[in-house]
Amino acid sequence: MSDDNTAFIGLDLGGTFLKFALGKADGTVLANGKLPSRAQESQQEIFKVMFAAVEQMLDKAHALNLHVVGIGVGSPGAIDFDHGRVLGNTPNLPNWTNADIRGQLQGKFNIPVWADNDANLMTLAECRYGAAKGARFVVALTLGTGIGGGIVIENQLFRGARFSGAELGHMSINFAGPVCGCGGIGCIEAYASAPAMVKNYREKLIKKQLPVPNPMNTELIFTQARQGDPLANQVIDEICFYLGAALGNIINIFNPEVIVIGGGVADAGEAFIQRIWKAVQGRAMEPALQHARIERASLGNDAGMVGAIALAADGIHANR
Amino acid sequence: MSDDNTAFIGLDLGGTFLKFALGKADGTVLANGKLPSRAQESQQEIFKVMFAAVEQMLDKAHALNLHVVGIGVGSPGAIDFDHGRVLGNTPNLPNWTNADIRGQLQGKFNIPVWADNDANLMTLAECRYGAAKGARFVVALTLGTGIGGGIVIENQLFRGARFSGAELGHMSINFAGPVCGCGGIGCIEAYASAPAMVKNYREKLIKKQLPVPNPMNTELIFTQARQGDPLANQVIDEICFYLGAALGNIINIFNPEVIVIGGGVADAGEAFIQRIWKAVQGRAMEPALQHARIERASLGNDAGMVGAIALAADGIHANR
Repeated sequence: MSDDNTAFIGLDLGGTFLKFALGKADGTVLANGKLPSRAQESQQEIFKVMFAAVEQMLDKAHALNLHVVGIGVGSPGAIDFDHGRVLGNTPNLPNWTNADIRGQLQGKFNIPVWADNDANLMTLAECRYGAAKGARFVVALTLGTGIGGGIVIENQLFRGARFSGAELGHMSINFAGPVCGCGGIGCIEAYASAPAMVKNYREKLIKKQLPVPNPMNTELIFTQARQGDPLANQVIDEICFYLGAALGNIINIFNPEVIVIGGGVADAGEAFIQRIWKAVQGRAMEPALQHARIERASLGNDAGMVGAIALAADGIHANR
Repeated sequence: MSDDNTAFIGLDLGGTFLKFALGKADGTVLANGKLPSRAQESQQEIFKVMFAAVEQMLDKAHALNLHVVGIGVGSPGAIDFDHGRVLGNTPNLPNWTNADIRGQLQGKFNIPVWADNDANLMTLAECRYGAAKGARFVVALTLGTGIGGGIVIENQLFRGARFSGAELGHMSINFAGPVCGCGGIGCIEAYASAPAMVKNYREKLIKKQLPVPNPMNTELIFTQARQGDPLANQVIDEICFYLGAALGNIINIFNPEVIVIGGGVADAGEAFIQRIWKAVQGRAMEPALQHARIERASLGNDAGMVGAIALAADGIHANR
């Protein structure tokens, strides 16, 4: 095969680390690493970290007699996919505003570069190599500090007219609900993110005049629930109820084959996924519900960097 | 131009009438007509009406020295676009279950046939020739007895994995809202369809021990509102509030360029559209909201048949 000696580099920029990998178009990872992302420093410092990561992976490729033909980059924020740059600002990387990812990396390495939002790349990775492999209509939700979303239609990421679509965490499930961090009202993120879950449990404990564990996190809530704590179980039932409402909408709107649930909260395991699925019943129309399934994300923390590899492989494929 | 003597026939099947037209790929209608659709009769009787319509339009084409190269058909229900047939049953056409639209029409006329859901074709028509002309990311809502939806992504209709997507009327805006006709809970259709609006006004009148007009419809509510009736205005404010919540979600999810509002309720006019738009503010994220606009459908009752023409023109174009 003519592709045999080609490889791709994937970078996944986060608030703490830059993760990176060298891989093949089929998602095989040949080498990987991570570096502190220096997210609070200047844009040029962050790019220096990226340059170092690419150089490491180029050395690996050279040693393996492979030719790197594309670089994919995942970044927080809205990303102008057509131009490979950040659109506006990013909450956790104060100096990353309008960063010209393609311009900087292509200028340095003279290798084609594609960039996209990190939630999109997690979705693409799960669709190509993970829990939704083989499906062409996929919606992903990542439950963490926020709720991120990604949408794959006919095997391609959907980005919206100006790269601002797929904000599934900011779908309102209650027009009179709590105000969300985005300014909206009753967003699923305001009900079912990790902080919302912690707040819910804390309020229930205080109401019952029970001690509030410190520190508290979603892992602890799931552990308490497994040990039979009725309040922790009530919190999880409520979260599943809210997610059921959101997933009902997603099924009626997208008629997806697979809904992938990822992020820290989903690490609670298969039983949690089953509880969510139960809550969807009766909330979506039968023809679409019958053919949908829900899967727990299978690529974990690697999803961003392998999604970046998939993005670059797609880019090369489309331009061929 | 080689296309100069080509034309298309569009059919729009409804519960009362079959509307049909002969037109060009640019949406110009050269001839049109309507026939009772005989919706309560057998499938073969309905097809006979379609055959008669196509024959009329073929005669017109012949007289105009035009060559009909494709037929598009809009039908209620879920339509298997790949095979041009109805999937399952349709509420208002009891014998139309699984109707093989392409098989019947192609067998009779030996002209390529494409079929799609009527809400999809209304959306396509507004996108190609109407209120959203020139836009490539469009969402349409038709407010009538039910609330129908259509989604255009990069100039193409989005149908979902099994042609059951875009059920925007069955997006829940309140997880604890009223039960909808679809079995779901708090769907926008249960809040803002014509029957929901009439019910809302009736309940307000009864509560105030005021006489309930008979017959009552949304036109009357809008007329009363214009004449200063505070209860009618309150109903409209509430409908706009609900639609604002739904459109906020649509903007966050799809980041569309244009949202088209059609259907009988939207005939209330531009002031109503402006009230809805006002209600969207604060309910969608700024980057997507800034670049979205809301438009009243401009093709009215012709949207279905010209959308059918667009569908056939697309089909021929794709197969060329």
